[in-house]
Amino acid sequence: MIPEDLVNKLLLNDRRSVARSISIVESGNLKAGELIKKIYPRVGKGYRIGITGPPGAGKSTITNQLTKLLRKENKSVGIIAVDPTSPYTGGALLGDRVRMTDIGQDPGVFIRSMASRGSLGGLSKMTIDAADVLDAAGNDFIILETVGVGQSELDIVKAADTTIVVLVPESGDSIQAMKAGLMEIADIFVLNKADRPGAEQAVAALKTTLMMKEHDEKTWLPDIIKTVASENVGIDKLAKEIFRHHQFLIDMNLFFAKRGKQAKNRIKEIVENKIRHELWSEEGENSLNYFIDKVVPGSLSPYHVAEEILTNYKNNF
Amino acid sequence: MIPEDLVNKLLLNDRRSVARSISIVESGNLKAGELIKKIYPRVGKGYRIGITGPPGAGKSTITNQLTKLLRKENKSVGIIAVDPTSPYTGGALLGDRVRMTDIGQDPGVFIRSMASRGSLGGLSKMTIDAADVLDAAGNDFIILETVGVGQSELDIVKAADTTIVVLVPESGDSIQAMKAGLMEIADIFVLNKADRPGAEQAVAALKTTLMMKEHDEKTWLPDIIKTVASENVGIDKLAKEIFRHHQFLIDMNLFFAKRGKQAKNRIKEIVENKIRHELWSEEGENSLNYFIDKVVPGSLSPYHVAEEILTNYKNNF
Repeated sequence: MIPEDLVNKLLLNDRRSVARSISIVESGNLKAGELIKKIYPRVGKGYRIGITGPPGAGKSTITNQLTKLLRKENKSVGIIAVDPTSPYTGGALLGDRVRMTDIGQDPGVFIRSMASRGSLGGLSKMTIDAADVLDAAGNDFIILETVGVGQSELDIVKAADTTIVVLVPESGDSIQAMKAGLMEIADIFVLNKADRPGAEQAVAALKTTLMMKEHDEKTWLPDIIKTVASENVGIDKLAKEIFRHHQFLIDMNLFFAKRGKQAKNRIKEIVENKIRHELWSEEGENSLNYFIDKVVPGSLSPYHVAEEILTNYKNNF
Repeated sequence: MIPEDLVNKLLLNDRRSVARSISIVESGNLKAGELIKKIYPRVGKGYRIGITGPPGAGKSTITNQLTKLLRKENKSVGIIAVDPTSPYTGGALLGDRVRMTDIGQDPGVFIRSMASRGSLGGLSKMTIDAADVLDAAGNDFIILETVGVGQSELDIVKAADTTIVVLVPESGDSIQAMKAGLMEIADIFVLNKADRPGAEQAVAALKTTLMMKEHDEKTWLPDIIKTVASENVGIDKLAKEIFRHHQFLIDMNLFFAKRGKQAKNRIKEIVENKIRHELWSEEGENSLNYFIDKVVPGSLSPYHVAEEILTNYKNNF
């Protein structure tokens, strides 16, 4: 049971209650759903910004500078930073986050790091739940920052109203690798460290690729913003572009359509996640192990076993 | 219905029947399961090699050279190459595969490219099904080659008996990004283009990371093989390392345990894939759309809708 007191304090943006609520959604158990159900009527006012890109592109620095800019306009900001963790060290690849000492003390900013390790495919589910918590707490902006290396990371930033893909002049190789996915999700491209050699070529290459995108008047065409985030260069332009994108979504009647599409994906993930938990409980794993001894030598095919499991699952309800 | 004639010819390694059978598993519909059920008693003799790594590392060239070496020992080879496709051009990023003209004419080699586009999460399912087809047709070796950029690509090479991760001296950045995933799956590391500057440093960096892996006497420790695949340098060492790994799995009683673990993952994917198809049929999508109009303004939470959908799903059986 979720205590009413926790919910009430969360809605008043009490920091400890926000932190506790995020821990609840992070645990991924039934309580997460209970909490979201209770706060959902108060969710939806915060504007969600997704920031992704290859490691070392400067995503944290951009998040930091953008947050400072929003704070100057007296907007409150909640940040979820999804850190990939190494299976060897168990720690975050990125180490201690520099910005913690910078904006972390500001009462108008709430930062939470989430590890992508061992989330059993529920990473985007729990990140979006956490964004709802920050939203219900009254944050004007919610920034979801994640390294763009895998599908579940991309799923996170797809849940934003405006998605920013950060690249650097050197990321040619990574761009190639991730092109398909990144092109699809980017509302704004940032070329960070734009004072480095190769910046103009990188922008030109990106523009060429962008021009190949099919579009009509209702298609937002991503612009490329050059920044040097460490020196706060270009962040104001980035903020303007975010607001321009927001306005475009509203003008074109796309804002709620986009949120509807995201809600659909989210519901699907909640349903599938629930089923996975029910299927592969200890009992389910045991019955699977029982079959495996027949599958490996070839006397029973994986499809036979799958049908058996599915029939059992349905008959149990 | 799968014609008996197709199955019989497939088991005799008739090329057209192999091609048709792979098309059936690629279609991803019920017929795939039917076919695998029929051929499964004849599956399991082929040795499966997975090859992955960042784009441009030389995976195709290594596959090509390794295949030639295996052919000299009179072994038959089936190859599944999973190509990422661009959402813009619709074509394969890698373009026409050079090797097609090289080993593609050899009757002891069967090559098939599969696109990763639009596979709705069923990519590894259909690739493993296709490997079964090549296995049942009597191929001594089955090579699964894929770009290591996403979870579903990693799932494919995890289904191999021996998994090779190909890197180049320049792939420092990519290594960082994909380290966690790659370290976990690699049985052998290949540093290709080892005649380029930075090769020794790359090997040293990789060794340092490998040494951090926890291990006991039953843990296989991946070696790093240096190759210049375009000049056929180091391929014989790579082949020896593959055989050494195979022998290790047998000596340590790990071979069937590994295949059992893979069979478990495969069965889970078949079950989940089937459920996804049943859930998100046209009817399912429609009922989802109906709910969405209440979710976006906040009058119904995604968790409420998810419960409703799950209850309906179970009650329909």
